[in-house]
Amino acid sequence: MTVDTIKPDDLVLICFKDRKYLKRIDVNSTFNGKGGSIVFSELVDKPFGKKYGSYEIYKPTLEDIIMFGIKRDTQIIYPKDAAYICLKLNLKSGSQMLEVGTGSGAMTLMFSYIVGPEGRVVTIEKEERHFRNAKKNIERFSKFSNVEMINSDIFDYNGSGFESVFIDVREPWHYIGHIQELIRPGASIGMILPTTNQVSEILKAFEACNGFGDIEVCEILLRRYKTVSERLRPFDRMVAHTGYLIFGRKLSI
Amino acid sequence: MTVDTIKPDDLVLICFKDRKYLKRIDVNSTFNGKGGSIVFSELVDKPFGKKYGSYEIYKPTLEDIIMFGIKRDTQIIYPKDAAYICLKLNLKSGSQMLEVGTGSGAMTLMFSYIVGPEGRVVTIEKEERHFRNAKKNIERFSKFSNVEMINSDIFDYNGSGFESVFIDVREPWHYIGHIQELIRPGASIGMILPTTNQVSEILKAFEACNGFGDIEVCEILLRRYKTVSERLRPFDRMVAHTGYLIFGRKLSI
Amino acid sequence: MTVDTIKPDDLVLICFKDRKYLKRIDVNSTFNGKGGSIVFSELVDKPFGKKYGSYEIYKPTLEDIIMFGIKRDTQIIYPKDAAYICLKLNLKSGSQMLEVGTGSGAMTLMFSYIVGPEGRVVTIEKEERHFRNAKKNIERFSKFSNVEMINSDIFDYNGSGFESVFIDVREPWHYIGHIQELIRPGASIGMILPTTNQVSEILKAFEACNGFGDIEVCEILLRRYKTVSERLRPFDRMVAHTGYLIFGRKLSI
Amino acid sequence: MTVDTIKPDDLVLICFKDRKYLKRIDVNSTFNGKGGSIVFSELVDKPFGKKYGSYEIYKPTLEDIIMFGIKRDTQIIYPKDAAYICLKLNLKSGSQMLEVGTGSGAMTLMFSYIVGPEGRVVTIEKEERHFRNAKKNIERFSKFSNVEMINSDIFDYNGSGFESVFIDVREPWHYIGHIQELIRPGASIGMILPTTNQVSEILKAFEACNGFGDIEVCEILLRRYKTVSERLRPFDRMVAHTGYLIFGRKLSI
Repeated sequence: MTVDTIKPDDLVLICFKDRKYLKRIDVNSTFNGKGGSIVFSELVDKPFGKKYGSYEIYKPTLEDIIMFGIKRDTQIIYPKDAAYICLKLNLKSGSQMLEVGTGSGAMTLMFSYIVGPEGRVVTIEKEERHFRNAKKNIERFSKFSNVEMINSDIFDYNGSGFESVFIDVREPWHYIGHIQELIRPGASIGMILPTTNQVSEILKAFEACNGFGDIEVCEILLRRYKTVSERLRPFDRMVAHTGYLIFGRKLSI
Repeated sequence: MTVDTIKPDDLVLICFKDRKYLKRIDVNSTFNGKGGSIVFSELVDKPFGKKYGSYEIYKPTLEDIIMFGIKRDTQIIYPKDAAYICLKLNLKSGSQMLEVGTGSGAMTLMFSYIVGPEGRVVTIEKEERHFRNAKKNIERFSKFSNVEMINSDIFDYNGSGFESVFIDVREPWHYIGHIQELIRPGASIGMILPTTNQVSEILKAFEACNGFGDIEVCEILLRRYKTVSERLRPFDRMVAHTGYLIFGRKLSI
Repeated sequence: MTVDTIKPDDLVLICFKDRKYLKRIDVNSTFNGKGGSIVFSELVDKPFGKKYGSYEIYKPTLEDIIMFGIKRDTQIIYPKDAAYICLKLNLKSGSQMLEVGTGSGAMTLMFSYIVGPEGRVVTIEKEERHFRNAKKNIERFSKFSNVEMINSDIFDYNGSGFESVFIDVREPWHYIGHIQELIRPGASIGMILPTTNQVSEILKAFEACNGFGDIEVCEILLRRYKTVSERLRPFDRMVAHTGYLIFGRKLSI
Repeated sequence: MTVDTIKPDDLVLICFKDRKYLKRIDVNSTFNGKGGSIVFSELVDKPFGKKYGSYEIYKPTLEDIIMFGIKRDTQIIYPKDAAYICLKLNLKSGSQMLEVGTGSGAMTLMFSYIVGPEGRVVTIEKEERHFRNAKKNIERFSKFSNVEMINSDIFDYNGSGFESVFIDVREPWHYIGHIQELIRPGASIGMILPTTNQVSEILKAFEACNGFGDIEVCEILLRRYKTVSERLRPFDRMVAHTGYLIFGRKLSI
């Protein structure tokens, strides 16, 4: 059986009770957390899934990277939303997709992991500050060289043929007309917006342009439970709102 | 710009208001639904996204296939849950994964689409009736030849090295010990169970075997909104429960 | 021990599985439902809580009356919302309150039951059709003579001194200024509105008039479970939306 | 118009942004909070609803008392649950009800406010410590002398004729048989329990004793919104779980 073992410079997820840390194995260094110290050199050649004192050491998943690895200067899109967005955009191995608003690059990474080496993600970010931060994140965590990063206004971009598009900007109604040109007839479109006013606004834009069908507006709620078999119950508090998700498909004329 | 056009024998999604139908284009045939008739031959060479009378014609997404294409003789796993399961199992292009309980093959297809041509999905189903139904579904809708279907008891299966496993059987606590042998240290495990009693039972099994960490129990709720800009409000009714999702990661000894 | 026994002309709630019927005992009549026939005369002098074949016979609660007794020609306010509204309006034995928009009179009855013989409910309905229907409902089900029903426009009403007000009209923002005059400084105000656009509108009115503080906007969700001890789980479907509740308190100048 | 004005020794609710404080007006004292100081003597003879600097001063509602006034040494029952419990127990002006487990006395107060001077609340608490704390709370905040407090084991209590009972103890299944004797046929019974295991246990007790019908298990979720008209959206976080509510009605034999 193949066993994944921890190597120098590997990323690891360190878990202690409800806390999680994403770290790179530096064999000359020691990690100090709430559960005591970890001498990194002692982890080398040990299998992932290892218990070390009261810690557990795992190979980071994409979710771990998004939650604990990405450096963020924009609003996070939570995994519960991100996963549903990928489904609604019909992402699979080989998909060709466009992202408008790279933000921190977390969604970009997720798209990249799913569409794989035969797929393609073009992502456009106007703000240079976000672009540079996203670039670092993507360089640090990417697995496939299938991402094309562009630092420009979406109106200056004229690619075409995308099978789906994800738009994460504050006022997407300004861009709908242009984005419509970039994607194939029947292509899936997705957005996330925090307020009901914005949702009303984008619906108004859809109603006006008449270029999109199968519109869906929804919220995804994640409710976690305490994992004690004899006292099963939801956690006392939860994330109640991240954003409204809006989806549609491009009509052909 | 590449335009996807409808060809004979293509699968199409036909939308009329809230109704959706998944059909194959038979050029000698006519579709009759609530919104009137569609002469299929008239759709040929038209782009996807086409309006036809009061219908809209789309290229089916994976979600459409799961919801409207799959022939089902077991309980459906809804897209909201399926998407989050894929995320928690860390599925991406190239993943090697195991599914215990093929059911109708809907999740198998989803796994197959994501892991792509360089990935691999082994799926095991004990009941011959389910196995045969799933086989037909997978043959009909698969895109990549990355699925190995096995009609046997999980106890008779001895593969190894899987990076993740999804278990969809009624009493998973019986199989945890064996499944632990088949997956890598650190591998992700996922399950769906409809009752709180079953969740307590599987948590008890985890507590007893001490072989899994980072246990998470949760529910995903999807709340849809009516898409009228001037009267934005949730739909009156919603799916309130599909199942509890249980996740963990294998510890190494 | 006092035992409530069923008398001729009593209201009874008849339960059969998930079905409930509110009926008046007519000793010359027979009830026919999904669970078979009930000869009403056989129930006389029997205690409430009686099993009769596969039926259970109860004395109706206020909730039963609201759900199964009230004749309705306006939108129902569900018990989950009604109960929270009463709390937020600080209703108790002896309260003096105003209702704008009597509707079917269901909330009026609930207010009446709580404020009791020493309290007072003034309710105003513009539409004569609703007024007449509500009058019948209230005459049929009231317990205390503490309700004053008025069939007029709220602008024609000039009472004062109310400790709280409940407003159930489509565009409450038109009336806020006038209603402010009718209630005491510090009085509680409550509303229910189905769309987010209406909520934005009323918040705008509050922001403009500057006469109300401690504004709260919320939703109440009720999730029911199947009551089988060994297979505890939520019902598959639930009511996902009834209305947004809006509360505030009148500021003094 | 009658205007409520603030008098020495009155209870007041002081609001500043999201913070609320319940205080008694001591004319020789000053309140110091996040929004600055309040010289209490300056509030005397002013109407409730007054703005004082950046504060708002209200007459406390029952909800304010429960949330900010009650001294608590047991788990709080939130207003959202408390309101629905009162409805399901069919409480109204004049009701005769029993409470098993007084706790901090918060629910007792709520019951007392609703049943009013012609109603009656008998409440039983075994733990002397809780009993004494509840006694102080009830003496401080009660409006009607309709509460009988008993410091004993429920098995030592033999009253009868109650129209409804609320049970707030950890293992209610032990007491169901006895409590059944104390309430009328058809009487409503209510409970709150935090874990699914407890819910299964009480359902098992109901199934075994066969003395209760119309069983309902549910949760009440309250989701609050930020009250900005142009950016309407739910708060980021919410209380996700307080307890499961269980209701039923006593069958007669």
